[in-house]
Amino acid sequence: MANQTEEYFDLVIIGAGPAGLTAGIYGGRALLKTVILEKGSIGGRVTSTNEIVNYPSAGETTGPALMEKMEEHARKFGVEIRNQGVRSVDFSGTDKIVTTRKVIYHAKAVIIATGTRPKVVGFPGETEFTGRGVSYCATCDAEFYAGQEVVVIGCGDQAVEESQFITKFADHVTIVSRRKDGDMSCNAIAKERCMKNPKITVRFNSQIVEVYGEEEVEGVVLEDTRTGEKEKVPCQGVFFFTGSDPETEILEGQVGFEEGIGKDEKGWLHTGDNMQLAPGVFAAGDVRSKYLRQIATAVGDGAAAATAAERYISELEG
Amino acid sequence: MANQTEEYFDLVIIGAGPAGLTAGIYGGRALLKTVILEKGSIGGRVTSTNEIVNYPSAGETTGPALMEKMEEHARKFGVEIRNQGVRSVDFSGTDKIVTTRKVIYHAKAVIIATGTRPKVVGFPGETEFTGRGVSYCATCDAEFYAGQEVVVIGCGDQAVEESQFITKFADHVTIVSRRKDGDMSCNAIAKERCMKNPKITVRFNSQIVEVYGEEEVEGVVLEDTRTGEKEKVPCQGVFFFTGSDPETEILEGQVGFEEGIGKDEKGWLHTGDNMQLAPGVFAAGDVRSKYLRQIATAVGDGAAAATAAERYISELEG
Repeated sequence: MANQTEEYFDLVIIGAGPAGLTAGIYGGRALLKTVILEKGSIGGRVTSTNEIVNYPSAGETTGPALMEKMEEHARKFGVEIRNQGVRSVDFSGTDKIVTTRKVIYHAKAVIIATGTRPKVVGFPGETEFTGRGVSYCATCDAEFYAGQEVVVIGCGDQAVEESQFITKFADHVTIVSRRKDGDMSCNAIAKERCMKNPKITVRFNSQIVEVYGEEEVEGVVLEDTRTGEKEKVPCQGVFFFTGSDPETEILEGQVGFEEGIGKDEKGWLHTGDNMQLAPGVFAAGDVRSKYLRQIATAVGDGAAAATAAERYISELEG
Repeated sequence: MANQTEEYFDLVIIGAGPAGLTAGIYGGRALLKTVILEKGSIGGRVTSTNEIVNYPSAGETTGPALMEKMEEHARKFGVEIRNQGVRSVDFSGTDKIVTTRKVIYHAKAVIIATGTRPKVVGFPGETEFTGRGVSYCATCDAEFYAGQEVVVIGCGDQAVEESQFITKFADHVTIVSRRKDGDMSCNAIAKERCMKNPKITVRFNSQIVEVYGEEEVEGVVLEDTRTGEKEKVPCQGVFFFTGSDPETEILEGQVGFEEGIGKDEKGWLHTGDNMQLAPGVFAAGDVRSKYLRQIATAVGDGAAAATAAERYISELEG
């Protein structure tokens, strides 16, 4: 603690994904002294996606290339981006405090753009093959499996609906569910459509124990939950829809951010149209409770949050 | 009517601005048979903006260049874009009908992305001199005022940024603002650049009451909002940047779109997070009731609307 310096900013943004970088672009352009703090890769989870085809105007690009452009864009407006993880926050006063190992940041406004993390199941191969056959986003990646065999892990609404989408491209999809025969946790319409779709097979009483391959995914090992018997199932893609969690750990139990404030029942940050969680504290991007989590929607959030922060600061200063 | 053909699409999008084109990208990518109908320029009102600096990842570009990229992006996914104005709609049934002079379109879902039109203030001379000295688009008309005197009405972002552009041609620009001395509603960078520009004067506490002239504009009458005193200010051009109204005329009194449904008090279309106005009918972009109207927020709307439309169509078809 003795080595921490104190620094003063107008706007501190936590997270340098599409929402955070866009908030930076808007903050910098409004001449707010702005810093973005990122504990991982600049660009956020997008950087783990090889091909991006749906960010409007970008055509075909890669996650890293697109996010590098957003990073440059923010820096051009004088925004600082620092590789620092947030350890604690104190939003109780008008002076908002965000603390990292090196610095105690004082800000007039804070934007939380921390995004999500996939629920990692945690067996061999899962992390190693992410971006090389293991995916967490059908909208992003389904078309890369045209004519191929895909395994989907999970049988909730998202898993089953996305499987349907994947069959527009893939030859065949195997949905892997730990539940007993015919028991699916998704909604009835999704279940019915899935059962009717000749390109989908649901494999009940099964769980994944391994993803294998050389450079890219070559298959998965499934285990029968009744007998413990294991079987190799060849495939080129494995999609996990076991869910994402909002990245809100740094906020838990912090001063001025009590449990339950500004969250929906699953822990996503709940804001109005102006992205405000509390006076001077805003949220943007995937960490929010929202209908669709995409780069295109994250940039909208970032623009709105920074605009709202700028208005809040202007009013604060009369 | 005898010459109208009937055509069937999964998704009809009305308007080819950033929201409509993004909805097209998402619709096309979800393999929906999609058409975008545009009565004016492909790209919408963005095409009349010279300088775009805040669309994340694009850096500095122009409205036409950015929108050309979005157009290409949508076409790449097989989306048709047609230059046709919508005459009437009928959203009362499951078969949604959108009619132009040439075609009766049948769609499973419709996205309204019609955007806005400049607000007409409505004092003497405004309409009479439109196109003869009164303009709402600097990109279109600034060059006609080379070496001349121009008056700009409004002091928001657009007014001040476009004034900067107009000074590339005009000798001098007077910005007219009802606000008190030094109070400008535009962003900080725009204000700073404007204050530094020797060719721009800002006239506070003032409002326009008349545009006068014979064949063409010869000047405006300004009123001091504190004293009520009126003064003639000679000029050759008057640009209005006083805000926008939602472009919803085609919906007024149409079947399945009754007065008052899905609108806020100012006529902006009111949707939930999934952009739905009514079953199978969605809205996206500036035409919506929303916190911030920017390209960045329009693309988010377009992505969400097309995703919701795709889910609606999937459920419809079981």
